Amino acid sequence: MPGNAFGQAFRFTTWGESHGPAIGCVVEGVPPLIPLAEADIQPYLDQRKPGQSRYTTQRREEDRVTILSGVFEGRTTGTPIALEIRNADQRSKDYGEIADKFRPGHADVTYWGKYGIRDYRGGGRSSARETAMRVAAGGVARKVLDHLLGSGAVTIRAGLVEMGGDGIDRDAWTWDEVDRNPFFCPDAEAAARWGGLLDAARKQGSSLGAVVEVVAEGVPLGLGEPVYDKLDADLAKAMMSINAVKGVEIGAGFAAARLSGEDNADEMRMADGRIAFLTNCAGGVLGGISTGQPLVVRFAVKPTSSILTPRRTVDRFGQETEIVTKGRHDPCVGIRAVPVGEAMMAVVLADHLLRHRGQIGGTGGVTGPS
Amino acid sequence: MPGNAFGQAFRFTTWGESHGPAIGCVVEGVPPLIPLAEADIQPYLDQRKPGQSRYTTQRREEDRVTILSGVFEGRTTGTPIALEIRNADQRSKDYGEIADKFRPGHADVTYWGKYGIRDYRGGGRSSARETAMRVAAGGVARKVLDHLLGSGAVTIRAGLVEMGGDGIDRDAWTWDEVDRNPFFCPDAEAAARWGGLLDAARKQGSSLGAVVEVVAEGVPLGLGEPVYDKLDADLAKAMMSINAVKGVEIGAGFAAARLSGEDNADEMRMADGRIAFLTNCAGGVLGGISTGQPLVVRFAVKPTSSILTPRRTVDRFGQETEIVTKGRHDPCVGIRAVPVGEAMMAVVLADHLLRHRGQIGGTGGVTGPS
Amino acid sequence: MPGNAFGQAFRFTTWGESHGPAIGCVVEGVPPLIPLAEADIQPYLDQRKPGQSRYTTQRREEDRVTILSGVFEGRTTGTPIALEIRNADQRSKDYGEIADKFRPGHADVTYWGKYGIRDYRGGGRSSARETAMRVAAGGVARKVLDHLLGSGAVTIRAGLVEMGGDGIDRDAWTWDEVDRNPFFCPDAEAAARWGGLLDAARKQGSSLGAVVEVVAEGVPLGLGEPVYDKLDADLAKAMMSINAVKGVEIGAGFAAARLSGEDNADEMRMADGRIAFLTNCAGGVLGGISTGQPLVVRFAVKPTSSILTPRRTVDRFGQETEIVTKGRHDPCVGIRAVPVGEAMMAVVLADHLLRHRGQIGGTGGVTGPS
Amino acid sequence: MPGNAFGQAFRFTTWGESHGPAIGCVVEGVPPLIPLAEADIQPYLDQRKPGQSRYTTQRREEDRVTILSGVFEGRTTGTPIALEIRNADQRSKDYGEIADKFRPGHADVTYWGKYGIRDYRGGGRSSARETAMRVAAGGVARKVLDHLLGSGAVTIRAGLVEMGGDGIDRDAWTWDEVDRNPFFCPDAEAAARWGGLLDAARKQGSSLGAVVEVVAEGVPLGLGEPVYDKLDADLAKAMMSINAVKGVEIGAGFAAARLSGEDNADEMRMADGRIAFLTNCAGGVLGGISTGQPLVVRFAVKPTSSILTPRRTVDRFGQETEIVTKGRHDPCVGIRAVPVGEAMMAVVLADHLLRHRGQIGGTGGVTGPS
Repeated sequence: MPGNAFGQAFRFTTWGESHGPAIGCVVEGVPPLIPLAEADIQPYLDQRKPGQSRYTTQRREEDRVTILSGVFEGRTTGTPIALEIRNADQRSKDYGEIADKFRPGHADVTYWGKYGIRDYRGGGRSSARETAMRVAAGGVARKVLDHLLGSGAVTIRAGLVEMGGDGIDRDAWTWDEVDRNPFFCPDAEAAARWGGLLDAARKQGSSLGAVVEVVAEGVPLGLGEPVYDKLDADLAKAMMSINAVKGVEIGAGFAAARLSGEDNADEMRMADGRIAFLTNCAGGVLGGISTGQPLVVRFAVKPTSSILTPRRTVDRFGQETEIVTKGRHDPCVGIRAVPVGEAMMAVVLADHLLRHRGQIGGTGGVTGPS
Repeated sequence: MPGNAFGQAFRFTTWGESHGPAIGCVVEGVPPLIPLAEADIQPYLDQRKPGQSRYTTQRREEDRVTILSGVFEGRTTGTPIALEIRNADQRSKDYGEIADKFRPGHADVTYWGKYGIRDYRGGGRSSARETAMRVAAGGVARKVLDHLLGSGAVTIRAGLVEMGGDGIDRDAWTWDEVDRNPFFCPDAEAAARWGGLLDAARKQGSSLGAVVEVVAEGVPLGLGEPVYDKLDADLAKAMMSINAVKGVEIGAGFAAARLSGEDNADEMRMADGRIAFLTNCAGGVLGGISTGQPLVVRFAVKPTSSILTPRRTVDRFGQETEIVTKGRHDPCVGIRAVPVGEAMMAVVLADHLLRHRGQIGGTGGVTGPS
Repeated sequence: MPGNAFGQAFRFTTWGESHGPAIGCVVEGVPPLIPLAEADIQPYLDQRKPGQSRYTTQRREEDRVTILSGVFEGRTTGTPIALEIRNADQRSKDYGEIADKFRPGHADVTYWGKYGIRDYRGGGRSSARETAMRVAAGGVARKVLDHLLGSGAVTIRAGLVEMGGDGIDRDAWTWDEVDRNPFFCPDAEAAARWGGLLDAARKQGSSLGAVVEVVAEGVPLGLGEPVYDKLDADLAKAMMSINAVKGVEIGAGFAAARLSGEDNADEMRMADGRIAFLTNCAGGVLGGISTGQPLVVRFAVKPTSSILTPRRTVDRFGQETEIVTKGRHDPCVGIRAVPVGEAMMAVVLADHLLRHRGQIGGTGGVTGPS
Repeated sequence: MPGNAFGQAFRFTTWGESHGPAIGCVVEGVPPLIPLAEADIQPYLDQRKPGQSRYTTQRREEDRVTILSGVFEGRTTGTPIALEIRNADQRSKDYGEIADKFRPGHADVTYWGKYGIRDYRGGGRSSARETAMRVAAGGVARKVLDHLLGSGAVTIRAGLVEMGGDGIDRDAWTWDEVDRNPFFCPDAEAAARWGGLLDAARKQGSSLGAVVEVVAEGVPLGLGEPVYDKLDADLAKAMMSINAVKGVEIGAGFAAARLSGEDNADEMRMADGRIAFLTNCAGGVLGGISTGQPLVVRFAVKPTSSILTPRRTVDRFGQETEIVTKGRHDPCVGIRAVPVGEAMMAVVLADHLLRHRGQIGGTGGVTGPS
């Protein structure tokens, strides 16, 4: 009933507030005998870490993860794996204004209304800081995929495909480019434009939204549990649960609603003894089950709500007022959502792989006649 | 682990294949002492029922629901409510072609690949027939909302806002219009255009996609369980789990990614002692918790995959072939998805209302200072 | 959250009241391609069926089970299996007395107090009639065990080892005897005595309690999910959830508390390349995981609360009164609990087998060095 | 699916190995606004702490608990509460013998067989050290009960009622006595005898079993979710999941199987406008729902398996050998199971109270007409 866990067979439960002593998670269901160390997880946290370019917040979060259980002599034991990150920088400071005022676009008003109390320091539990533990759990999930399907058999990558309404040229898509610019953008020219866009937005005390695309290749056919835990349904939940996400689509997504039936239905031929789809409007899922094609998910991230432009709001005493959200904020939270989207893809796949193995045995198949 | 149930506190589990003897569901967690009869559920099934206009399949499905348990002397007892619909029309017929061939855009190939067996008659478990039980469960969920929040306090309505890429004029939105045309369209002029569009598509052996918008008004502030069972995350899963849905968005949705931070953050003022949001880009959810504003969800439905235009495919023996899906099919499955979307909204709300009451007590609040 | 389902990977949800139109269950998680028909389930229901000897109630319940979904051309498809039994004998009759009075030892007072309403006809949901669906689900679970471990690899048997305080001679234990007397008693002499005991109790308008022992042989080493879903913890829950059960023990059970540490710890030797335990005080479970030895569970069933001796009670208006429970009741409900205990053992094993396969792969092992 | 969590509405997930850097748990579902500090939890941990008398292990475990999240300005916020205990004493030492040999009566052989790897240091995950987190979670659960039902409305107490086969005189039961002897024994004379018994057992390199009785008074009528999550079924699972427990019984328990129907069925009269049961054979539960009477649960704890008497066993290479379990071990693990049993009672009650409130509203009732 409580909502702090994700997944069923591969399951992680997160805890912690932005400015508490630590954040952490417990990862359950990991098969035994998988080599695992902090070094397997840390690189993903480093990708998400703020302060890596002038386009993300300049806060210092080392985000150094520690494994506290579930690993013995370098390998998983099948028991729960506790991960923890100590919060380095919790200077006592004056939170006066946000303690009482509800920041528009933030969860201040709803946490207050629901619980009657909120840890307002840095957003408390509703802070995007929580996503660090998603990324950590995602690192473990990738190890599970590697262990069960073969090292590198599944690749999970993501990039920013739109910022402030400016989309990439999909023909220019270059995965390597993602690591070369501060926006995780697969199109070098778009990345160049976005630098200017973001500088302008910041100068105006504004912020920008973005669209993230996550692609998983090498996913075996057969993952997904119809009719309510369809693979795409769980992916939709996974992505929509990330802070600031307002929309999710699979494959052609909303554009599919504009296609004709004959254009949308991916035809099939045989190639090398396997079924080969001629297109991938489905985004790798049919009837809630993976087809073996690339799994393609996109999600929309709203513009950062913490902005320097004054906004009208009310305080908890019912007084009308204004607020300016000072401090070190990402002008586009969509950027750092990229590794989070990858992580959520990884945990959904690990979960469904174990669930599939439980009921059916094996680890899914290739798209072929049988 | 199995994926046939939805919800936690208000929970329903469905079963049944398109051409089996019956379909049904078990609804659990319903509070006791709620007046309930088949007549409370049947009207919603009738909305979804095929054959009501020439724009939906001419199959005859009476879809007559029976309550088999959980109700005593006209009121719920708190024990599980079994609902059942007998399948009237299961003539033995020749399924030869679809028994062996994988229809493009359908789950044939993935069910076969995952399970190694599939009930191909009418799509079996992957048939949209399953959605009848969602609608039935939704009827019970509405009674729960009425019982706990006051009769009619929450209204859940939906309409088709786009068909074949042709969108409505939102300024012309008239809820009453939804019941006056065969498309559940809130814009009379758009509905008029769509008749022609759909006739043309059918004539060409093609089909059209659509976008459905579901709006819940009167939802109290406070529903949703961060950070993984956020209200919007569960709504995304609920809608994406409906057959043929490829995208889900909340409030401004994907368009939010194109707004500036100051335009997207809904400002607040006081009105009548309550907090009044000046806009609703958030679609009624902040931080995964309902704000008390209208809850606005849209989802994209792909064009019907069963079309008369021949498509290339393969059969289960690995032979390349073609297929034409004959039979009585909806040229736009998005139409009949409208009552299904409403139902999924109702079950998500009933579930979160009970979950909220469990942890916090009460049934949520209004948006006000406290 | 609702409590009508049992199991996680192999999961069944039951519904129905004693005197409603039907009772049923939905069995989820069953692997595909298992041959399954009503004839696989009916024999277990027949064992539990009343009226088979003069020692059980003379009610006529045909308990004819029907499979409504999840099976295609004689084999499971991996989708939910709906089972249903129509209630044949629901003559309208006068329930006046039990409608208002709370029968001592029954759930009348607690259902009334909890829900504010109760279906008093035959005990409604709290009737032992519900256990028929446990037995049906158990029949499916046995097929799963056979399918995954080999036909007959696991044998699940149970017997009555004590009635009215009169225990069997364990040295006389003969499994075949269980089918030869109306008490499922493995000791012929005890069975002979019990006939007299039960006749005497009935003549006095009284009833007797009993102890059931369930033994599963051939269970592979490795089933159980520490530390909360230990195999023995789930067995304890499974058995305690059966109507009228007041105690559960594993292996030596309560007697273990009277043994010395050296007598209780089962020593190990090698035999045929496998580990052989010299004793089985543990009852086949160590640390919540099966050892490969016979799994031994006993549970205590209280004497039937429906008796002809007048008992003091109160009615729902707060008036003191007396009650005599007329009708056709089992003088010892423990007898018919025997097939129910077997069924619960089967479902726990099927559930843990699938859960084990999900996380670890394979179907458990033998007790050997590796 | 993984088995590291207990409860549904009030839910806790534990992690950690005996000799790892720390152990911990995440407690979810706690209502907001409850005053909570480490000082509310520590006293229960201190009761369980070893080394308090010469009758428990002399290991030094400070077991100092820290709250890492979910509490703000001294009150719960409704978000997950992370509790952690750092393991002070993890000297590197030679585990050679138990690293390879399977200790009889321990989980060594089953963890090895199931997972193919085990953290043998101090028993790893299977160590009774894990129960410290049950006790910690129980401390939080008690606060929930106090908050929702009134401070002190529910009292949960436990005592040892039998050791090494020597039972207490129930007529001499004095709750205050429990705190006055090192055995949590409510009978002073029995406690005096047990000192001698235990000294003798230890001198012989042996160990003793015990029976614990847990009593909860003030539990409102109505808690429990039939038919699978009955209150007694969940209590049975809760207690059976504690290390070394081999049997659980409710109320008269196994003795109920020896009573006549008229002696066992607790009669009812009115007293002060409420229903008063004349006896409590049921142990406070009817049909899986609390009656409002004292909830009485007993569980059997096997004698410590770690003994100084040499036992025959095998090692992981399949060699027959002997083992003597040296080190500082409790000669009767039943003693320290007393606060653990109380804790499990508390978490079951908190869980069912929240579940009840979710479906029914309110916090249960008194036993009265309505």
